[in-house]
Amino acid sequence: MAESLLTQRVDAIRRLARRGAAAALGKVVAKTRAEDLAAAMMHLHPPEQRLVFGQVREDSVAAVVLASVDPQDFTHLIKDLPVDRLAVLLAAMDPDDQTDALEHLDEETRAAVLQRIHGEEREQVEELMGYRPDTAGGIMSPLAFRLSEDCTCRDAIAAVQEVSDHEQIYYIYVENEVHQLVGVVSLRNLLTHAPSTTLNEIMIRDVISVTPQTDQEEVARIAGRYGMLAVPVVDEQRSLLGIVTVDDVIDVIREEAAEDMLLMAGVSEQETPNLTRTQAVLQRVPWLMITLGGGLLISEVIRRFNGVLSSDLILAGFIPIVMGMEGNVGIQSATLTVRNLATGRLEGRAGSTVIAEMGTGLSMGVLFGVLIGTYCMVRYQDYHVAAAVAIAVVTGMTCAALVGTAVPLTMKRLGIDPAIATGPFVTTAMDGVGLTIYLSIASLLLGGR
Amino acid sequence: MAESLLTQRVDAIRRLARRGAAAALGKVVAKTRAEDLAAAMMHLHPPEQRLVFGQVREDSVAAVVLASVDPQDFTHLIKDLPVDRLAVLLAAMDPDDQTDALEHLDEETRAAVLQRIHGEEREQVEELMGYRPDTAGGIMSPLAFRLSEDCTCRDAIAAVQEVSDHEQIYYIYVENEVHQLVGVVSLRNLLTHAPSTTLNEIMIRDVISVTPQTDQEEVARIAGRYGMLAVPVVDEQRSLLGIVTVDDVIDVIREEAAEDMLLMAGVSEQETPNLTRTQAVLQRVPWLMITLGGGLLISEVIRRFNGVLSSDLILAGFIPIVMGMEGNVGIQSATLTVRNLATGRLEGRAGSTVIAEMGTGLSMGVLFGVLIGTYCMVRYQDYHVAAAVAIAVVTGMTCAALVGTAVPLTMKRLGIDPAIATGPFVTTAMDGVGLTIYLSIASLLLGGR
Repeated sequence: MAESLLTQRVDAIRRLARRGAAAALGKVVAKTRAEDLAAAMMHLHPPEQRLVFGQVREDSVAAVVLASVDPQDFTHLIKDLPVDRLAVLLAAMDPDDQTDALEHLDEETRAAVLQRIHGEEREQVEELMGYRPDTAGGIMSPLAFRLSEDCTCRDAIAAVQEVSDHEQIYYIYVENEVHQLVGVVSLRNLLTHAPSTTLNEIMIRDVISVTPQTDQEEVARIAGRYGMLAVPVVDEQRSLLGIVTVDDVIDVIREEAAEDMLLMAGVSEQETPNLTRTQAVLQRVPWLMITLGGGLLISEVIRRFNGVLSSDLILAGFIPIVMGMEGNVGIQSATLTVRNLATGRLEGRAGSTVIAEMGTGLSMGVLFGVLIGTYCMVRYQDYHVAAAVAIAVVTGMTCAALVGTAVPLTMKRLGIDPAIATGPFVTTAMDGVGLTIYLSIASLLLGGR
Repeated sequence: MAESLLTQRVDAIRRLARRGAAAALGKVVAKTRAEDLAAAMMHLHPPEQRLVFGQVREDSVAAVVLASVDPQDFTHLIKDLPVDRLAVLLAAMDPDDQTDALEHLDEETRAAVLQRIHGEEREQVEELMGYRPDTAGGIMSPLAFRLSEDCTCRDAIAAVQEVSDHEQIYYIYVENEVHQLVGVVSLRNLLTHAPSTTLNEIMIRDVISVTPQTDQEEVARIAGRYGMLAVPVVDEQRSLLGIVTVDDVIDVIREEAAEDMLLMAGVSEQETPNLTRTQAVLQRVPWLMITLGGGLLISEVIRRFNGVLSSDLILAGFIPIVMGMEGNVGIQSATLTVRNLATGRLEGRAGSTVIAEMGTGLSMGVLFGVLIGTYCMVRYQDYHVAAAVAIAVVTGMTCAALVGTAVPLTMKRLGIDPAIATGPFVTTAMDGVGLTIYLSIASLLLGGR
């Protein structure tokens, strides 16, 4: 459903929900796809969400809705759901969605739901839950279609015919007698060879695979690079544990992009419009505290230079421009570095990148130092302030480029998400350094007056 | 190939390239996948890139390399390539990659290459090039596998067997007698029905499709929402023009995320480590110019308040903190809004979002206004400055939240990319407004002293 159609449907749902017109609402819900219902949820308030969800008649549809909504909406939807019903809906999900759903439950509910899942399925789920959520193991589905290498194309086709409609076959994975993944065959390949040909004869042997511990970003990169619809996950013995399908890869890419963007701005990643005011405030306050702390330190720095500031009031007028320009250069460098780290472009060229960025910072510093200095002379005929501003901009921009590049590179090496580097922490630090440079130079030049 | 292995391979390639060991380089290149060669390119300098590319023996491999590299690297690779060779390589590409490649050529080369493409293929390419690059038409491939609705499963399987190995079949699209798209069938469905069944009997009739004008972001959203491996593109008569495949969807999501992130920081999207210093500087300068212009205006504002600043020097010390805190709140609001606009979360709730964000801004303003005001009193016993800072922080943070939310919403409505809203333009504007509020309140309170 296109976005505009979805908006209309959401409006209709919302109107009906407000009027409490359950029967009419049920009709609209019945003719809406599960994926659209899930998409509609994010435009509805929690009570509306539950009202709509209550109108979903088929378990299979309700399961898809639950599996497709954002974690935030998921929590709202299941709030009043009895554990038995929850267990039924989870049982109707694919194993990887099931695991995700379980991970979003509080501990008590999770244990209660797990108790209601039996035998093999429970073992499977518990095994999947053992992997970290941001690894291949954490996002894989164990439903990989696998056949033995001596299986003929005829038998393979028969096997494909018997698979439940529920399961989508991306590729046919081929195993040897000790259950190692040795090849892969496409569905179409089965059709283009003689029925008596064995899979061994037609399979691609050079299978690209990952381990359960592979970071999800790396899995996404591999799937994207080779245009794979599913990436097989194997253990050390090369036995096939499951597959990460392309729809999960898309989710990963979206998630990681959103995470980086919000981290860069100093917002926690969980924030969505359905948060309460207090929650929203509490999630942003820590970042502002960093700015506050830095700002108070900076105010002390300025205080120390009160002598020079009072002797030349024009100096104060250029504080914002010096801070702003340097902050900008720092953010530019940091963002580019974060970006290029994410795409793998900087692999093995950290040193040259820092130097190149410093060069760019210096060039821009000279350009803008001259511009601002000239302005200062023309506007105020104040050569001392002009010189102080110019030198501060040159030095500060070069420093900002250095810090903006080096900090994310260092963070990456320490295993910290480099996106934090463009957030309030580094911005504030750069403000302090830039200002100190500016006022120190100014007091050197003007101190004698 | 995992990232660590790729790094090793890149190191080997680089060493061999430096030594000019062409024969050894040729061997390494021959045993590396085309996609890995493309990935390796971004770690190599342009001369190394061309040396490696020259060692690729098979046209099909060279075509995949060219189709997979970034636009930047593409330009480096084809720099010295004769037009005839380029035409041969482009002919070996999928039509959608061919179109992309042509769009990255300068006009002269493009015309020369197009002249070397003949007949139907040229028509196809020219038609594809008629669509805007960021629409479904611009990224679709015309290679959609289509059959008539009265075709039997038996005949359909025979048709599948005859398709060239080159082309991947995602779904079988079903057309009626006037070539309208009326249904879709999966490859596996062909196998699970009696050979004499017609496609009409087994197809899914409710086909999700887009038009060539649909924005690529919307296509990506649809593919992701419904877990589609390919999205059909139809014209107003519902005839099938082509498909957007999931690998292109992944590219779109990555591109849009990168674009947003860089726009937010005020960096042009094209920048990669292989730019020359001058290019890098020139791409960032426009954004800094905005900061410069804004900063100069702000310096004038401060100048106007010189009277109050000289009467109370503590005031100047709090300029950075007032600007920093408000800037932070503005960026937080703007980033969240950009993010929620991108995911479609804000559809039809613009008004309530602005009010909610202003509420959050106000709450944080009160919190930090009290904190900073108290600090000011304790540290300097200056009640006037304390009051001015506190009031300025409350007002400024609320304004910043308002501006940070309203500007991207307005931009979206005007058809401008809202990510620009968090860039230097708005940040600088917010600095100016915040500072004016601060100094105005201060001069009101302190003016009489």
